[in-house]
Amino acid sequence: MRVRLAGICNTDLEIVRGYMGYRGVLGHEFVGVVEECADKSLISRRVVGEINCYCGKCPTCRAGAPTHCPNRTTLGIWGRDGAFADYLTLPVANLHIVPEAVRDEAAVFVEPLAAALEILEQIQVKPTDRVVVLGDGKLGLLVAQVLALTGCHLVVGGHHEGKLAILQRRGIEARLADELPAEKADVVVECTGHPGGFAAARGLVKPRGILVLKSTFHGDVEVNLSALVVDEITLVGSRCGPFTPALRLLEHGLVDVESLISAIYPLDEGLAAFEGAQKRGILKVLLDMG
Amino acid sequence: MRVRLAGICNTDLEIVRGYMGYRGVLGHEFVGVVEECADKSLISRRVVGEINCYCGKCPTCRAGAPTHCPNRTTLGIWGRDGAFADYLTLPVANLHIVPEAVRDEAAVFVEPLAAALEILEQIQVKPTDRVVVLGDGKLGLLVAQVLALTGCHLVVGGHHEGKLAILQRRGIEARLADELPAEKADVVVECTGHPGGFAAARGLVKPRGILVLKSTFHGDVEVNLSALVVDEITLVGSRCGPFTPALRLLEHGLVDVESLISAIYPLDEGLAAFEGAQKRGILKVLLDMG
Repeated sequence: MRVRLAGICNTDLEIVRGYMGYRGVLGHEFVGVVEECADKSLISRRVVGEINCYCGKCPTCRAGAPTHCPNRTTLGIWGRDGAFADYLTLPVANLHIVPEAVRDEAAVFVEPLAAALEILEQIQVKPTDRVVVLGDGKLGLLVAQVLALTGCHLVVGGHHEGKLAILQRRGIEARLADELPAEKADVVVECTGHPGGFAAARGLVKPRGILVLKSTFHGDVEVNLSALVVDEITLVGSRCGPFTPALRLLEHGLVDVESLISAIYPLDEGLAAFEGAQKRGILKVLLDMG
Repeated sequence: MRVRLAGICNTDLEIVRGYMGYRGVLGHEFVGVVEECADKSLISRRVVGEINCYCGKCPTCRAGAPTHCPNRTTLGIWGRDGAFADYLTLPVANLHIVPEAVRDEAAVFVEPLAAALEILEQIQVKPTDRVVVLGDGKLGLLVAQVLALTGCHLVVGGHHEGKLAILQRRGIEARLADELPAEKADVVVECTGHPGGFAAARGLVKPRGILVLKSTFHGDVEVNLSALVVDEITLVGSRCGPFTPALRLLEHGLVDVESLISAIYPLDEGLAAFEGAQKRGILKVLLDMG
């Protein structure tokens, strides 16, 4: 397919710093148009694509967890050239047609929005739960919007008033991280994207609470495992999620993703786009393949 | 109540090494006889006792999690003298009458057996799950016996052939840890009691699997949190559990605890008992209050 728009993710920035040890074309958030395909009905259709390419034959795939296939390649992350290019290929099974009502500038967010929804595939967030999302980056803002749809008591903690304002405009309580309420939460989602976020998030979880980990970064973190035992905390690692409900949320206008776009660069200014994406206060930087 | 028998737990050995910073009478596994009580029907009854003494008034207690009450004292662990003594006191609400059929030498295991059952209060272990218990110490042998009752595919990994033989005699597959099968497990329970157990247990969990933490020890552990995210692992800290089902398992003869007794010392040989409890190959050491 021909790529139309692609998004720079924090994972891309971490890969450039050494995470995953990947060498190849980066980029795993995109919207494109199918130009060549065995399934002729897909040609000229606007699509987004799941990023994990699986074997379909191993016990993990057969057990219904293809995103964990040990033989997988992952678009722009592991073993498969990604979306910061004019063209990319993916298996037909990975493609999802984008509904008419969803613009390219929204469709390019399907992959990270699906990752936000993965939390609700893994744990039950009750309408009566107190929930804290830590981190006001790109993923944190998507996670917050998705969790707000549950009706839970949600507070988001971040470090950038401009980013928090995007949530506040939607009626979501968002505060500077050092002004979070003292009362601990049933569920805390760590979306800061850096190792220091763990200790901060851990301190916000009540006993028997759940701490969801969404950040990936290079290196280890010192953890007091005994305190997890004493407080009976559940830690849940959470990665890629389901595309179909992400497209439904966009089609129904239940989340606002376009407010997250900070800048759009043409592909041949890709290096400048990467520099821009790392600047303080910047949210999503897109690459436009023209 | 007058203490009849008390058991030395790994937590007691860790407290002596500095864990929890507790000073006071140790001991939280016991069976005793009530001598004085506001509830006269309990006098002369043989009892075991839940170790967490809670306020009953705070939000945590009212939310049904009294073992996590922030105002709690814990018998022989925090703010409340324990069971390595002639007498101890506990609130009436903490006491459970021991059925006739359960001998003192079995009743003294109710507290750690309840801790083993706590795993099944927290997670669902399916009959078709592959489960590994890592650690053949006192708690590991109890956890293994409890999990074997689910019908799951269970393998226990340890370092002491004599301890593993206790399980093998009950038909439970138990192997030296470096001879565990290569196939990863849906659920792994870390019961080694030392920091190095985490990495070993982590390596045995399949993607989307559950790693239950039962060990408490002094100090932190380096953890690759990003790998938990990528593999979507769930970590579950697990501590104290329910006494009533533990007493039922003992009454129905569904677990064998008395094979775990390595030695019984009189209370006035308590120091020798502690030395004995730390020797390689030793399982449960009891103190007999005579």
